[in-house]
Amino acid sequence: MSQDPLVIFTPSGKRGRFPVGTPVLTAARQLGVDLDSVCGGRGICSKCQVQPSYGDFPKHGVTVADGAVGERNAVEDRYDRIRGLKPGRRLGCQATVQSDVVIDVPPESQVHRQVVRKAASDKPITMDPATRLYYVEVAEPDMHDPTGDLQRLAAALAGQWDIPQVTLSPALLPTLQKVLRKGAWKITVALHRTASDAVPQIVALWPGLHESGFFGLAIDLGSTTIAAHLTDLDTGAVRASAGIMNPQIRFGEDLMSRVSYAMMNPGGEVEMTRAVREAIDTLAANLAEEAQIDASLILETVFVCNPVMHHLLLGIDPVELGQAPFALTTSDALNLTARDLSLTTLPPAAQIYVLPCIAGHVGADAAAVALAEQPGKAEELTLVVDVGTNAEILLGDTQRVLACSSPTGPAFEGAQISSGQRAAPGAIEAIRIDPATKEPRFRVIGCDLWSDDPDFAAKTAQTGITGICGSGIIEAVAEMRLAGLLDPKGLIGSAEQTGTDRCLSTGRTHEYLIHDGTAEGGPRITVTQGDIRAIQLAKSALYAGARLLMDARGVDTINHVTLAGAFGAHISPLHAVVLGMIPDVPLENVTSAGNAAGHGARIALCSLAARREIETMVKQITKVETAIEPKFQEHFVNANAIPHATDPFPNLLTHVTLPDVSFNAATGGGDDGGRRRRRKG
Amino acid sequence: MSQDPLVIFTPSGKRGRFPVGTPVLTAARQLGVDLDSVCGGRGICSKCQVQPSYGDFPKHGVTVADGAVGERNAVEDRYDRIRGLKPGRRLGCQATVQSDVVIDVPPESQVHRQVVRKAASDKPITMDPATRLYYVEVAEPDMHDPTGDLQRLAAALAGQWDIPQVTLSPALLPTLQKVLRKGAWKITVALHRTASDAVPQIVALWPGLHESGFFGLAIDLGSTTIAAHLTDLDTGAVRASAGIMNPQIRFGEDLMSRVSYAMMNPGGEVEMTRAVREAIDTLAANLAEEAQIDASLILETVFVCNPVMHHLLLGIDPVELGQAPFALTTSDALNLTARDLSLTTLPPAAQIYVLPCIAGHVGADAAAVALAEQPGKAEELTLVVDVGTNAEILLGDTQRVLACSSPTGPAFEGAQISSGQRAAPGAIEAIRIDPATKEPRFRVIGCDLWSDDPDFAAKTAQTGITGICGSGIIEAVAEMRLAGLLDPKGLIGSAEQTGTDRCLSTGRTHEYLIHDGTAEGGPRITVTQGDIRAIQLAKSALYAGARLLMDARGVDTINHVTLAGAFGAHISPLHAVVLGMIPDVPLENVTSAGNAAGHGARIALCSLAARREIETMVKQITKVETAIEPKFQEHFVNANAIPHATDPFPNLLTHVTLPDVSFNAATGGGDDGGRRRRRKG
Repeated sequence: MSQDPLVIFTPSGKRGRFPVGTPVLTAARQLGVDLDSVCGGRGICSKCQVQPSYGDFPKHGVTVADGAVGERNAVEDRYDRIRGLKPGRRLGCQATVQSDVVIDVPPESQVHRQVVRKAASDKPITMDPATRLYYVEVAEPDMHDPTGDLQRLAAALAGQWDIPQVTLSPALLPTLQKVLRKGAWKITVALHRTASDAVPQIVALWPGLHESGFFGLAIDLGSTTIAAHLTDLDTGAVRASAGIMNPQIRFGEDLMSRVSYAMMNPGGEVEMTRAVREAIDTLAANLAEEAQIDASLILETVFVCNPVMHHLLLGIDPVELGQAPFALTTSDALNLTARDLSLTTLPPAAQIYVLPCIAGHVGADAAAVALAEQPGKAEELTLVVDVGTNAEILLGDTQRVLACSSPTGPAFEGAQISSGQRAAPGAIEAIRIDPATKEPRFRVIGCDLWSDDPDFAAKTAQTGITGICGSGIIEAVAEMRLAGLLDPKGLIGSAEQTGTDRCLSTGRTHEYLIHDGTAEGGPRITVTQGDIRAIQLAKSALYAGARLLMDARGVDTINHVTLAGAFGAHISPLHAVVLGMIPDVPLENVTSAGNAAGHGARIALCSLAARREIETMVKQITKVETAIEPKFQEHFVNANAIPHATDPFPNLLTHVTLPDVSFNAATGGGDDGGRRRRRKG
Repeated sequence: MSQDPLVIFTPSGKRGRFPVGTPVLTAARQLGVDLDSVCGGRGICSKCQVQPSYGDFPKHGVTVADGAVGERNAVEDRYDRIRGLKPGRRLGCQATVQSDVVIDVPPESQVHRQVVRKAASDKPITMDPATRLYYVEVAEPDMHDPTGDLQRLAAALAGQWDIPQVTLSPALLPTLQKVLRKGAWKITVALHRTASDAVPQIVALWPGLHESGFFGLAIDLGSTTIAAHLTDLDTGAVRASAGIMNPQIRFGEDLMSRVSYAMMNPGGEVEMTRAVREAIDTLAANLAEEAQIDASLILETVFVCNPVMHHLLLGIDPVELGQAPFALTTSDALNLTARDLSLTTLPPAAQIYVLPCIAGHVGADAAAVALAEQPGKAEELTLVVDVGTNAEILLGDTQRVLACSSPTGPAFEGAQISSGQRAAPGAIEAIRIDPATKEPRFRVIGCDLWSDDPDFAAKTAQTGITGICGSGIIEAVAEMRLAGLLDPKGLIGSAEQTGTDRCLSTGRTHEYLIHDGTAEGGPRITVTQGDIRAIQLAKSALYAGARLLMDARGVDTINHVTLAGAFGAHISPLHAVVLGMIPDVPLENVTSAGNAAGHGARIALCSLAARREIETMVKQITKVETAIEPKFQEHFVNANAIPHATDPFPNLLTHVTLPDVSFNAATGGGDDGGRRRRRKG
């Protein structure tokens, strides 16, 4: 008796013997090979494309003859004519096993395929979508055996897809009958599962085979900006990205002023909730328009946000988050619907997933950073810092992960800075100061040239030079220190002390002039002593948070620093280290993770397994509450100075040498002296 | 070693030995005795009251000494002082086992107690509420171990109530923190389960021990009237009942005209859905006001309704129900929320249960009748008829249950009758005609006296005599037949033929004058030949439906008839049989079930087990579709006559004798002759 042909699938290597005539899709399913199909083998969705190989495969011990999966049939010819089929490709549901064969499943035919990265720093995403499409043929109603349309649809899903049980979103009750009839009893349903073993819910229905895709939003709901990626949930590709201002800014620039607004104004939290939901609706509509898709195809949305935004999104008064013990209403992940959040651009059955919070000050945004950056998988101790109005800080390796948040305030975002502005065209984002001449050169957003380039003026005529943004002010302060314009205590020297006319007296203190545009009607951009103080406060808070985690972990040094956040992506590691924002590590071990929170949101959007992963992970993270740790104040005060040559940062000295200047100014000197003393003590 | 004391609970008879000092509540729980408790044994809710017995119990083989459950303690004394404790009663959580004891659990301390019947015809209801209250003490937040308030509440429910998992209704996210703090971390939660083994959902929260009850609405959503009972979900008692007109009447009197309205007017179904939901909100508010409760305490609502109302309630275009094959969107029961149905009087987390439908023409109202009347438990073959605009008909015994609906039209409700009106004060609801004098006497709604009573005129001065309602017209037609004013074909005789001046010519036909109020400015109330025809059509449809089920069951006779429906409650069995509305049975076997659909709704409201029961039951019912059974037309035509002495109704003849008159009138005679011939053939 001759054996059945051997079928070997690549890249999985799964193999088995199947009778001649077995469809390749059937063989793949029986072996558990990850081969997609929406139509269930009817030859209409083309998701199950495979690439049979011919020739000798010594590794597998087989020789594959031509025609090992039969000749292309009429269904495939028709598909090729209408949609095109790449050379060598076959439809897995039409090709049948004829003899030993090696069959490659190309990435785009795998359900759990990896998604092309959006940014070089992004970790790859393995698709494991919570929502999947199923094409079904439903039995027509029969007066002799009356059952509801939904019951016959459920029976079809059971019979054709082995899905024993489904529910229907109540929002779809009005459309089920019309879709079934429009599709002549052939429809595509989108099934959403909150867990891989949960009863799936029908969240969308289309007549016939649905081919115009379905989409998800990954939303990073920040205090200042709401950023979203519209993602194709079939391929995982980002189709459009956009950000808008969080309209809650009119109720308070930072989180605590919004909490205060809710406390002082009865119903204030309701106003703020309405505002942010309207903004999300607008953002979703803008993205759908940009991607030229129907917003009704947005079936899933994932939110990451800090705890205050989390509560305001959910309609919860954030007052408890503004006072000890900073209790969250709920720290677990949430599965909701667009209807629950009164979002109107999305279809009411659209599913919402909100990542879990880590603690009252460490939100779902920090959880998203943890998901994207995986500090718990780092072999060497790694500090992950997400810099924003609040800094989320994670410290971990394979042994343990710790987390805290630190109230850096908005200085790193250009707020509370005399010439500060948000990152927008015209803002100075990078700056260099010549240590000899003390002359600055800079770059503005919207132009790749430095200001000493002859074409700079012409290229920036449109935007002008309008102010200095977060990354610009950090570089400015660090460069001033490197150029000897600033002493370790953070005092700006006078023109006499520094030898440059750009250091101007403002009475008791000095300021450094970067750019004077007044002749052309533009602004005069300087760094004042007050700006230096604001940056010192912010960086001390960040540094102190990181130190606190190191204390909790019982370490004095760390190996890697990852700067995350949309803003983190623009900070120069050198300047961050000079400024003392982060504990000292070799510069080459400071990397930028881009918008890690946003990337974490995308991962959760594309993967049910990732949702389980972060839900488990947050429970294992050690939470450190900066507000109750006495050491936080101590670290904060000690971190005020901008380190100089005698400070204990041995690694840094291999890279840069800081001048040992000291300005004896009237303001702040006494204070700083005190700090310095404590630091040395 | 002496044995532990023996504890015997009555009425369950459950028994076991427990160490001295065991609280009675603990002993009850370990034995699975049905003893209520909301506070979990803290001595504050008083739900666990028990009655220890003393003396000899030969049946149980024990003698119970005084003090067998110890002396009343301070907690019980305090409770007695504040709330009162009946003599001999103890709190099960405070009384402790001291020696052998027999302990009675009074009905009000049982969770699964039976509810006092609302009407004599109502079957008793055993409480098995889907929603139950739990008092819990929640741990306060701790910055050193930050978890959400919800997570600590869930942990408290797990620790104090053995409830391993709960979810929170998204609608309650905004209130959780405030309630926990207002209650100083002691709160009462209402947990709702869609099935006894489902993960419960928190659907309401109150600070401290909640003692002002929680409620449910059982709503019978009819085409004409929406009737509701506001029920105490703790005791099962009906606290208020009311009905209002279905405002959809402005879109069409009967169901098919509403379906037409939806077909002819784009968005018409949306208008009708909005109208009915607004009416439900109004009704709920009225009932809450009448019962003097806060509408936010209405946590559950059960709906029973015909398929068209079912779809319009759910926001579904009913067009498919207006044409073969009469496909329902869904026939299964539905678990929804007030938010899903945009009901605003109820709290958004309030749970909605809609009973399953049996078929496209046999709705959740028929299912409710089946639940209340249990034809599947009848030893003898029983016909259950719910008379309304459509008649729902069930035929069954322990072997099998069949169901159909029959389009009787609105004549039985007084519509399409010349002097017809809805059942309201002033409407003639009962009538008797003297066979000798042919003079009528009658009763109107709002007055107990017959019209030949000397006080009648005075007592009805307020309401007047305004028309004739459904039960009145049925009695009128039957009485006219019994008095010889009507021949078996349904023709009204002339004054000469009948010997009374009350039979007046109207041209080609005659009418019978019941009351002439024109002298006092009132109406002239007659029964016209057209009225007789309308009633004949309606009763033929009803009769034909019943016959169809008998055919399907293969029987010629039945044993019992139950007339259900608010209207069925007012039909006189004698007159129903004389008219030939129902197949012939001995009069004493015709019973009225009152508002069986409404009672079925109450049962489902109070019992999760009953919901499971009806869900199973509807799947086992054999559905008969009258529209496609050729025999229906045949039965319908044959049933047109009003039976006389030579008709094959042997049982009837033991009760009444019908006159063998025959009027050879100009109208209808030919037709009727034809029918009569077919019938004899």
